[in-house]
Amino acid sequence: MNGLFRKFAAGCAALALTSPAFAAAPNPEAAAAAADAVGGGTGYILNTLLFLIGGFLVMWMAAGFAMLEAGLVRAKNTSTQCLKNVGLYSIAGLMFWVIGYNIAYPGDFNGFIGGFHGPYGMQDVGAADLDTGYSVASDWFFQMVFCATTASIVSGTVAERVKIVPFFIFVTVLTGLIYPVVVSWEWGGGYLDAEWGFSDFAGSTLVHSTGGWAALVGALIIGARSGRYGTDGKVNVFPGSNIPLATLGTFILWLGWFGFNGASQLAMGTVGDASDVSKIFVNTNMAACGGVVVAIILTQLRYKKADVTMALNGALAGLVSITAEPLAPTVGQSILIGGIGGVIVVFAVPLLDKLKIDDVVGAIPVHLFAGIWGTLIVAWTGDATFIGQLVGVLLTAIWVCVASAVIWFALKVTIGVRASEEEELIGLDHAEVGVEAYPEFTRG
Amino acid sequence: MNGLFRKFAAGCAALALTSPAFAAAPNPEAAAAAADAVGGGTGYILNTLLFLIGGFLVMWMAAGFAMLEAGLVRAKNTSTQCLKNVGLYSIAGLMFWVIGYNIAYPGDFNGFIGGFHGPYGMQDVGAADLDTGYSVASDWFFQMVFCATTASIVSGTVAERVKIVPFFIFVTVLTGLIYPVVVSWEWGGGYLDAEWGFSDFAGSTLVHSTGGWAALVGALIIGARSGRYGTDGKVNVFPGSNIPLATLGTFILWLGWFGFNGASQLAMGTVGDASDVSKIFVNTNMAACGGVVVAIILTQLRYKKADVTMALNGALAGLVSITAEPLAPTVGQSILIGGIGGVIVVFAVPLLDKLKIDDVVGAIPVHLFAGIWGTLIVAWTGDATFIGQLVGVLLTAIWVCVASAVIWFALKVTIGVRASEEEELIGLDHAEVGVEAYPEFTRG
Amino acid sequence: MNGLFRKFAAGCAALALTSPAFAAAPNPEAAAAAADAVGGGTGYILNTLLFLIGGFLVMWMAAGFAMLEAGLVRAKNTSTQCLKNVGLYSIAGLMFWVIGYNIAYPGDFNGFIGGFHGPYGMQDVGAADLDTGYSVASDWFFQMVFCATTASIVSGTVAERVKIVPFFIFVTVLTGLIYPVVVSWEWGGGYLDAEWGFSDFAGSTLVHSTGGWAALVGALIIGARSGRYGTDGKVNVFPGSNIPLATLGTFILWLGWFGFNGASQLAMGTVGDASDVSKIFVNTNMAACGGVVVAIILTQLRYKKADVTMALNGALAGLVSITAEPLAPTVGQSILIGGIGGVIVVFAVPLLDKLKIDDVVGAIPVHLFAGIWGTLIVAWTGDATFIGQLVGVLLTAIWVCVASAVIWFALKVTIGVRASEEEELIGLDHAEVGVEAYPEFTRG
Repeated sequence: MNGLFRKFAAGCAALALTSPAFAAAPNPEAAAAAADAVGGGTGYILNTLLFLIGGFLVMWMAAGFAMLEAGLVRAKNTSTQCLKNVGLYSIAGLMFWVIGYNIAYPGDFNGFIGGFHGPYGMQDVGAADLDTGYSVASDWFFQMVFCATTASIVSGTVAERVKIVPFFIFVTVLTGLIYPVVVSWEWGGGYLDAEWGFSDFAGSTLVHSTGGWAALVGALIIGARSGRYGTDGKVNVFPGSNIPLATLGTFILWLGWFGFNGASQLAMGTVGDASDVSKIFVNTNMAACGGVVVAIILTQLRYKKADVTMALNGALAGLVSITAEPLAPTVGQSILIGGIGGVIVVFAVPLLDKLKIDDVVGAIPVHLFAGIWGTLIVAWTGDATFIGQLVGVLLTAIWVCVASAVIWFALKVTIGVRASEEEELIGLDHAEVGVEAYPEFTRG
Repeated sequence: MNGLFRKFAAGCAALALTSPAFAAAPNPEAAAAAADAVGGGTGYILNTLLFLIGGFLVMWMAAGFAMLEAGLVRAKNTSTQCLKNVGLYSIAGLMFWVIGYNIAYPGDFNGFIGGFHGPYGMQDVGAADLDTGYSVASDWFFQMVFCATTASIVSGTVAERVKIVPFFIFVTVLTGLIYPVVVSWEWGGGYLDAEWGFSDFAGSTLVHSTGGWAALVGALIIGARSGRYGTDGKVNVFPGSNIPLATLGTFILWLGWFGFNGASQLAMGTVGDASDVSKIFVNTNMAACGGVVVAIILTQLRYKKADVTMALNGALAGLVSITAEPLAPTVGQSILIGGIGGVIVVFAVPLLDKLKIDDVVGAIPVHLFAGIWGTLIVAWTGDATFIGQLVGVLLTAIWVCVASAVIWFALKVTIGVRASEEEELIGLDHAEVGVEAYPEFTRG
Repeated sequence: MNGLFRKFAAGCAALALTSPAFAAAPNPEAAAAAADAVGGGTGYILNTLLFLIGGFLVMWMAAGFAMLEAGLVRAKNTSTQCLKNVGLYSIAGLMFWVIGYNIAYPGDFNGFIGGFHGPYGMQDVGAADLDTGYSVASDWFFQMVFCATTASIVSGTVAERVKIVPFFIFVTVLTGLIYPVVVSWEWGGGYLDAEWGFSDFAGSTLVHSTGGWAALVGALIIGARSGRYGTDGKVNVFPGSNIPLATLGTFILWLGWFGFNGASQLAMGTVGDASDVSKIFVNTNMAACGGVVVAIILTQLRYKKADVTMALNGALAGLVSITAEPLAPTVGQSILIGGIGGVIVVFAVPLLDKLKIDDVVGAIPVHLFAGIWGTLIVAWTGDATFIGQLVGVLLTAIWVCVASAVIWFALKVTIGVRASEEEELIGLDHAEVGVEAYPEFTRG
């Protein structure tokens, strides 16, 4: 899904449009070529359809994050987590329209920052520009749901103590500015794409690490939940209140990932593209399978228990790991890449606790660490150099961390970012939302 | 999705079928035209595919209503609510096949009532009538799930006191007669379409207001839940038992709405149609975003709490508001229309309580009030007059209210419509279903 | 989805590829034919797209089984059930790749056992073999999720007492060997297909009965849950802990079944195929509606309560019943076939209890009994003989029962298959997973 590829795909589509595809088939080779290029109108429709299907699947991931997080927080903070998730998706939609998309895809620019061009304009009713090869509104929708995903990642890490208003303000800046700038560097044709040959097919770095860095900085500035880390070095476990919901959330995310990675092929109007989308489906699925199986085996060996939350995060880490290059690897490589994602989760979750970094749902191991792993391994499986990949990881890290730190810190010293200790004790649902999640099940 | 448009689309498709689309492309303009009309067989398949994808997304909305309502009733009525939802969807399917579809789409008729033609016949295996431009079974499926949606709306309002058998009898009449007659007036080519130029793209009035009126009349005839309104004017809040389920339900409905509005374009076999479907996706999404953000801001300002159930209903009200015309508005207009839907919800929910109309899930503000708003505003954004829209709203109201009142009242004086006070106290799950929803969580 | 049909479809696709489809349209008949065969590239893409959409819908059924089972077990075993479901899907993915697919589809073979050919190879990036008529990776993905479904069926029956490790070992053999061999006999072109004319469109026998037999044998060898059947013949009911989750699971399965049956048409690249897929959607939906309504009416008459879990299982039994032939029946026949599925469930669930066969979620009535019913009735609705269908049912039964018995028994006498009585009492979540599903809701 990088800029060059995007342009290439659009070029192919445009070419197909101007050729009288099925008009004459003088010899078998030409017939095969004509069959491959299915004709401009049909190609345009199929490319658009891929964006729409991919778009609604990735939109559905917002529900996945909501359920995963609602299941992994304590009952007294569950309504708040639901509110944050439906709110962040909505804010992402508005901000990506108001300024985000035009920052992310500025057209010709200096490669670093594309400037503000205002709200994005869709095509008129019934209009269609065949040169684009797809409906621009379908592309915008697909890009918008990626933007929302980035924000979803943050909400899980900083759950149970960040207040609603500062959280939403952070989301506003993240989805309107921080994320779009990262995208412009790569998918928007900026310097990472042009000068470093950085490759990130569907966003291990651009989406998942960006969300992960913003979450990590938030966790550091906001601090851990009260009582989470004892003065004696003891880690107090705050178990998630609803494991089936977390399981549901994971399955939703797994389903949505077929859209996330599959539709990042950006085209389905040739037989080659359709075959590639299929291969991406398989590799995406198998990386998740690898992550699950590895996480189950490791926790069984290490703790004599097969930890279900680790299995769920193993699936997600497998999915994040394959996202930077879900097309080029063989199935075996995909299982391996996803499996190592599972390893990362099993070891990184306790490591963060040792460092007293309080990540409620494990989003930092899943999205940041596995995102980095997935990006770097493209040097093996894909068309990229290790240095180029490393540069992409590092520059994204610097920008996102600095920008996030400025915003989180500004919020902290002005309106405050976290609930009071007393509010944490009674739960954010009571303090901030006024609606208990399970009024009949819990005591208090 | 009105009759004229339907006929126009079918005509275009038929035209495309008879033209040797790609046979010759003597000049660029002709090539572009040929590209737009993608060829009869392909167009037929793509139109059919739109109905199938839209159909399964709208079918999925039945699960959304089930989860929304299961989450917003008290635990002692949750199994009953689940049963009602799976039952109403099934009844809707049977009734719409037995008589509903042929009442809704009677072909030539007097414009008011189309008569009974018996079960709808699908195409034979392997048969396909290219003149229709799509598979008739795919269209039937898409229409059937709309019918089920209408019934889903009712079940939320009258929850926690209506008995199962009379509820199912009402659903039988609603889905077999009341809803199909409304549809015949507009999408079936009846007098609202032909004489008033009434415009309702995907059913703000035909589906959502119809369900809303039936729910309102039901709430009035059945009465409020015991103890809901004190004699001193005090409103007793009966909080929903499971907010994450309600959140899940809302996300499911949001996802399903891409099918509801997007596939109401009724065609995807031209590049213009594909582009329009894409624009509908964006506008639908953005109206919901507007509804959420407005509801959060208003409740935060008014109550100093960001009410999560209002945010969820804000999303739904935004979606209902844009449903009457999701194609013509700009993105900015869509956000505004959806945002006003959010305003309606925040003010109408307490207003209904003041009027002692007991609407358990807020379906009347969301589906009826926002449905009226969305229908009337088409006079601004779409191709319709305010008078025409108002006539459509009023005549639908009269028919649905009178017919619903007759049925609800007949049920009341014969088999009775509501549980006894004692049954309400112990819960309908115990009284009517015999299966507790959460036997291990609740006390009693 | 049998082998002959598969070959026929591939042949048609291949034919379409070599014909200059739209090049000349000298007369209306030829134009219609050309319109039907939409052109090789487009047909290839549409066939592939059907597999991908069908594939992600059936993948989603894994979440449906997880939610259904999580809702129907007691709270103390819920985390375990979630883990088993995410684990079994992952194991199925790995095993079906490592050896399963090549056993299931061995090409030329003796008709009984196809031998081991190692991992399945996907197409290279950008490659596409037009002769296959679809992307082989999309087909593989669609076949893989069927394999996972078979394993999902087993986990529900043997829940609440089977230990995690032996369960996963059984799944490994089931998905890598037992299920693939069954598939090879029919869809792989083996003796059931070639010599008996056995017909099983989407797997009432191949998937659902296979899972059901494996579950039945497991239930017999593992034995009932402690305390389930009193010495005095009394059946102790262990009510499910979360009915809305079970309802959600049922709706997910219902949705996924459109992919399960619809995409088993295996092609969408002609107008005839697209029409048939549509008809399958309608019949599938209506069979489920029939199952629900019948189950509600029967339980209301028999027990004076409309049992919600029976209604849910009625939907599933209706779906299983129509799966062997969802295309040929009329809508009326489909409702009848599904309705009898509902009858089966209502009577078979108490019958199993009388036989002291402990099936936690009712998977044996739903998947095995309704699967047999659905397979036999094809002699009436489809192109098959009663004897041929019966032979298919019986030979599948023999193979699956013998193979399952060997594995379950070997596990029993080696590592043991079931938790100790004490572990059952405290719950498998505590004993095996270490993560409680609802730590704040339940007492203990």
